Amino acid sequence: MKITLNGKRACLRVWKMVFPGFLIACLIAAAVVLLQATEPPVQKTMTMAEIVAAAKAEDWRAIDPENTLYMELAGGRVVIELAPAFAPRHVANVKALAREHYYDGLAILRVQDNYVVQWGDPEVDNPQKARKIQRAEKTLAAEFDRAIDAKIPFTLLPDGDVYAAEVGFSDGFPVARDKNNGRMWLTHGYGMVGAGRGDTSDSGGGAEIYVVIGQAPRHLDRNITLFGRVVQGMELLSSLPRGSGPMGFYEKPEQQVPVKSIRVAADVPIAERSDLEVMRTDSDTFQRLVESRRNRPDAWFLFKAGRVELANVPIPVRKKAGKSGTL
Amino acid sequence: MKITLNGKRACLRVWKMVFPGFLIACLIAAAVVLLQATEPPVQKTMTMAEIVAAAKAEDWRAIDPENTLYMELAGGRVVIELAPAFAPRHVANVKALAREHYYDGLAILRVQDNYVVQWGDPEVDNPQKARKIQRAEKTLAAEFDRAIDAKIPFTLLPDGDVYAAEVGFSDGFPVARDKNNGRMWLTHGYGMVGAGRGDTSDSGGGAEIYVVIGQAPRHLDRNITLFGRVVQGMELLSSLPRGSGPMGFYEKPEQQVPVKSIRVAADVPIAERSDLEVMRTDSDTFQRLVESRRNRPDAWFLFKAGRVELANVPIPVRKKAGKSGTL
Repeated sequence: MKITLNGKRACLRVWKMVFPGFLIACLIAAAVVLLQATEPPVQKTMTMAEIVAAAKAEDWRAIDPENTLYMELAGGRVVIELAPAFAPRHVANVKALAREHYYDGLAILRVQDNYVVQWGDPEVDNPQKARKIQRAEKTLAAEFDRAIDAKIPFTLLPDGDVYAAEVGFSDGFPVARDKNNGRMWLTHGYGMVGAGRGDTSDSGGGAEIYVVIGQAPRHLDRNITLFGRVVQGMELLSSLPRGSGPMGFYEKPEQQVPVKSIRVAADVPIAERSDLEVMRTDSDTFQRLVESRRNRPDAWFLFKAGRVELANVPIPVRKKAGKSGTL
Repeated sequence: MKITLNGKRACLRVWKMVFPGFLIACLIAAAVVLLQATEPPVQKTMTMAEIVAAAKAEDWRAIDPENTLYMELAGGRVVIELAPAFAPRHVANVKALAREHYYDGLAILRVQDNYVVQWGDPEVDNPQKARKIQRAEKTLAAEFDRAIDAKIPFTLLPDGDVYAAEVGFSDGFPVARDKNNGRMWLTHGYGMVGAGRGDTSDSGGGAEIYVVIGQAPRHLDRNITLFGRVVQGMELLSSLPRGSGPMGFYEKPEQQVPVKSIRVAADVPIAERSDLEVMRTDSDTFQRLVESRRNRPDAWFLFKAGRVELANVPIPVRKKAGKSGTL
C-alpha cells in the first residue's frame, strides 16, 4: 500500500509536474490539427513570371491563323489577333482588304505621342491617285458594341473601373459591359487595333487602321470600332518617330513608314508563320496572374496596391509549345 | 349708331379673327420671358483647344527655373519640372547632382516598352570605373508620400479612381490622397519622373532616374519616390528603341543613348532657357478643360464618356507669353 500510496503520491507529484507541459502539448496538438483542417496547404505566392512559367498546356490557346494578321514592316512583323466575336463585319472586311493586297505598299501616316499609330493610303484624298478597293467594302456600319451573350466569355476584374460598370476579359481581349443596357464592348488600351472613321459612325471600314500606343484612351470606347489586338511586335510601332503635324501626322511624305504587306496568317506558308499562343483568360492560372498583379509578391514591392486596373493586366503570349524561338 | 353697331359688329368680327393669333403671340412672348428668366445665357461648349486658346494670363504660371531640369540629348532637350512640395530631399539632391555635373556623359540604359525609360551610370556596378558622387548624397530616405496639408493645393477629379480614395491635381502634378490616413502622394502616369531604387526603400537618391512612357503604372505609387514631371520633350524618350534585355535594358553598350548633360534651368544663360508656363490646375479654366475631357464637345464624339480618368487629363504647357516659338 505504501508503495501504492507512495506510488500514488509519487504518481500525483509527477503528474503535477508534467501536467502543465502536457496541457501545452495537447493545446499545440489541437491547434495543429485545427490549422491543418482549416488552412489550405501553404503555397508560396508566385510572381507573374513564375505563374507563366508554371502554366499548363491547357492554360494556353493557339491563335487561329484565319483570325490573325501579319503586318510586315522594314523592322519586322507585327502580329494582330482579330476579334470576330465583337466586330464580325470589320474582321471580315479587313481580311478581304488584306486578301486583295490593298494594304501592300501603303504607309504609316500618323504617330501621335501617347495616343495612336495609324496607317492607310497617303493618297486617300486624291481621287486620281487613291488606291481602289476592289472587292472589299469601302465603309461599314459601326460595331461599337454588341449584345451580352452567355456564349461570349467574360472574366470579371474585381476592382472596378472609372469608365464602365464592369470590366474584364473575353477570350484574351479586354472588355467592358453594362448589364443595365445589355451591351458589352472591346476597350481601348495598349495594343488595341481599330478602324479609323470620319465624323459619321459608318464612315470607317478598315482601310485606315490605328493601334493604341499610350495611356488607355477609354473616351474612344463605343465611339469607334475596335476589331483586334497586337500580340507581338508592339515595339515596332511604339518606338516610331512621332509626327510633328496636327494629330501626329507626318508632315513630309518621306517621313511616312512603308507597310510592306498585310496578310491573313492562314494565307502564309506554314514555315513562315509566327505560331503564337495566348493565355486563356478564363483559366485558373490567369486568375492567379491577376491576383499576382493586384498584390505583387516580388520582394521589391514594399507596398501592395491590392487593386489592379484593366489596362495594367498583361495577357501573356508565347511561341507555340514545341516551336523553337522565343518572343 | 349704325356705324357704331356696324362698328361694334365689325370690331367683334375683327377681334374673333385676330384673337387666336393674339393668343399665340402672347403665349410665345410669355414663353420667351420665362425662358430668359430660367435659362443661363447660351454658351457653346468649347473644345480643349478652344479653352487653352482662350485662357487668360492668370490661368498660367511660369515654371520656376530653380525647380526645372534640362536634360540635353542628341535629339533635343527634355524639360522636367521638379516637385519640391512632394519630394524636397530628392529634388535638392537631384539638383546637387546636376550642379556637380554628375549626369553629364552618362546614358539611357533601359527602355522598357509601355513602362519606363531609365538613365544612370553604365559602370555603376564596377567600383573601378563607376562615377564618384562628390557632394550630393548617394542615397536618401524614401519620400513615397507626404502628410495632407491645407497649404498644398488639391483639385479633386470627380470620377473616382481604381487605386486611390481620391485623385486630382496639385500645382500641375497628378496626385492621390487618402483622408483616412492623412497622406497624399504623386501618382505614376505618362511623363512622371522618379528616382530608381533597389530592394530597400532608402536605396535610391536620384543617381538613377526613370520616366514613365506607357500606361500609368499605378502599382508603383507609394513604392518609389516620384519627384517631377516631363513638361516638354517626352517624344525624345518615348520613341527610343526598346531594349531587348530583361526589363528593357540595352544589351550592348553601343545601344545606350548618351545623356549630354543635365542642368538646373537657373544655371543656364537666360537666352538659352525654355521659358514655359503650365496651366494652373486650381483655375476655373482648368475645371472647364476637365469637363471638356469628360464630355468631348467635338463633333467626332458620338458617345460622351461622361467620365475621365486621372491619366487622361492633359496638363497644358505653353511657351511663356511674349516669347517667340511654340512647343
